[in-house]
Amino acid sequence: MALSEFALIERYFRSCGAQRSDVALGVGDDAALLRVPAGCELVAATDTLVAGVHFPQDSPADSIGHRSLAVNLSDLAAMGARPAWALLALTMPQADERWLGEFATGLGELARSHGVALVGGDTTRGPLCISVQLLGYVPAGEALTRAGGNAGDVLFVSGTCGDAAAGLAIEQGQLAAAAEARGWLRERFLWPTPRVALGEQLRGLASACIDVSDGLLADAGKLASASHTGAELAWAEVPLSEPLLAVLGEARGRELALGGGDDYELCFAVPPQNIARLTAQLPPADWRYTRIGVLRAEPGAVVVRDGTVMEFSHSGYEHFA
Amino acid sequence: MALSEFALIERYFRSCGAQRSDVALGVGDDAALLRVPAGCELVAATDTLVAGVHFPQDSPADSIGHRSLAVNLSDLAAMGARPAWALLALTMPQADERWLGEFATGLGELARSHGVALVGGDTTRGPLCISVQLLGYVPAGEALTRAGGNAGDVLFVSGTCGDAAAGLAIEQGQLAAAAEARGWLRERFLWPTPRVALGEQLRGLASACIDVSDGLLADAGKLASASHTGAELAWAEVPLSEPLLAVLGEARGRELALGGGDDYELCFAVPPQNIARLTAQLPPADWRYTRIGVLRAEPGAVVVRDGTVMEFSHSGYEHFA
Repeated sequence: MALSEFALIERYFRSCGAQRSDVALGVGDDAALLRVPAGCELVAATDTLVAGVHFPQDSPADSIGHRSLAVNLSDLAAMGARPAWALLALTMPQADERWLGEFATGLGELARSHGVALVGGDTTRGPLCISVQLLGYVPAGEALTRAGGNAGDVLFVSGTCGDAAAGLAIEQGQLAAAAEARGWLRERFLWPTPRVALGEQLRGLASACIDVSDGLLADAGKLASASHTGAELAWAEVPLSEPLLAVLGEARGRELALGGGDDYELCFAVPPQNIARLTAQLPPADWRYTRIGVLRAEPGAVVVRDGTVMEFSHSGYEHFA
Repeated sequence: MALSEFALIERYFRSCGAQRSDVALGVGDDAALLRVPAGCELVAATDTLVAGVHFPQDSPADSIGHRSLAVNLSDLAAMGARPAWALLALTMPQADERWLGEFATGLGELARSHGVALVGGDTTRGPLCISVQLLGYVPAGEALTRAGGNAGDVLFVSGTCGDAAAGLAIEQGQLAAAAEARGWLRERFLWPTPRVALGEQLRGLASACIDVSDGLLADAGKLASASHTGAELAWAEVPLSEPLLAVLGEARGRELALGGGDDYELCFAVPPQNIARLTAQLPPADWRYTRIGVLRAEPGAVVVRDGTVMEFSHSGYEHFA
């Protein structure tokens, strides 16, 4: 027996996320009622995942649930915001209860780990497509944006880059890897870790921030452009994971790190006068970020290797490009 | 030449909606920054339209843009909320500039007429699917919900019902109509009018409210159920438009009014002691609403004709039902 839409929403999503006392009314009415803390600005983002475009059709449902929230958590992390409430617009071909249960598990575990309540949504029939809207807040005037950087600011990136692109290539059978590297890289694609705590900690330290979803070079370029500067990245400084190095070697690894998407790391600029405070408050060994370059007056985003500017044909994934 | 995703978003959506001074940061960063007025609760809703499910594949693009926001405005109207900010998750098979321009026109005109700013979104490639997230606010504690009704409260509905379902049937070639009725009913499907001003005025008057998207009987039943009551609708009182009467006659017209969806009228309950104030503050002739029944202690939603409870096989459209 097929479940009705209302029963579906009830069963899988009503208590999927965190319980929060600032939710005056959650799932089940025409809209949710939420209380934004005094002195804070509301932060709102939405990102969509489409089957066959953003993930392989046969991806595990719990990973799809995780990623659909993770990509939005990463957007809020890039603003230095605290995530609080999510709405889910889920379009799927049929009501497969097992798939729904796994999807809700993946979404719910990540939501609860970040204290995010699922407060509403819409379930419709159609080709598999998931839009999550994530709401959060930040002390008024303290949000990080892409636009606050200045020439001379130092560029950093969290974690390592290129892993998710390699993991997707493995998932799609386009890249071979030994079992251990294979497992780790696939995890990086299927289960990205949004850097929410780092984003919040960067308020007052970073001048600009963006999350790396379309590729490090492209996203550093977007930050630089919004800041009316350029970005100069050092080829040798782009952080690579051991598994990526093992599978691709250094040259191909760095290319993928610069051009591949879906890493959901944070790329951020820090004014020189804040560097000492950054490293004191957020020891790099604990917070895992790497200096990768600088903002400069000249526009554009370039990679410098041994004093020479490199040419890149692939500067990040664009839909419709 | 295909436009890049970023150029697309820039061109069509950056100044599509209203300009608002409470938008600290709009389209173009990782998330939007918004200021909710002091003393207000945030109201958040999302609704998705899928091509071939919620509208015919060949619907006019400006109507799709209009409807994608209208269905969400209707949700906020049902809460008695004032809409303020929207995010758009647009998935489409290819970047058709003409289609995008018309879509943005339909969405933008409705947004501006309600003072709604488009503050963010995501454009992806895939089967045509539109999710709008609409945010607004309401004085804390004053929102209308589905759950506040009591047995004895009088049920009303705004406008007329069944028109949109007839308009869709006409649009799909399943129903013939003379030119004038045809045009009017199609308009009611393609260009629904969310009752935002009425919803705001009903705060402090209505005990419960819901928007009629799945059919009057089904939605009145949901309001009644959330209020731990039942709903008794009077067959003869269900308001029908002249064009619907002309095309379907009274019996089929009332059936469609009770069972058909997509009207986006408001169904609301008013305690007997508030009726005099309702009709004084909101003259029915100006605000166009009709008494259609009562909430009663006995659960369920029924329609009574000449003292007899009628049987309905079709109690509203459900996805996956």
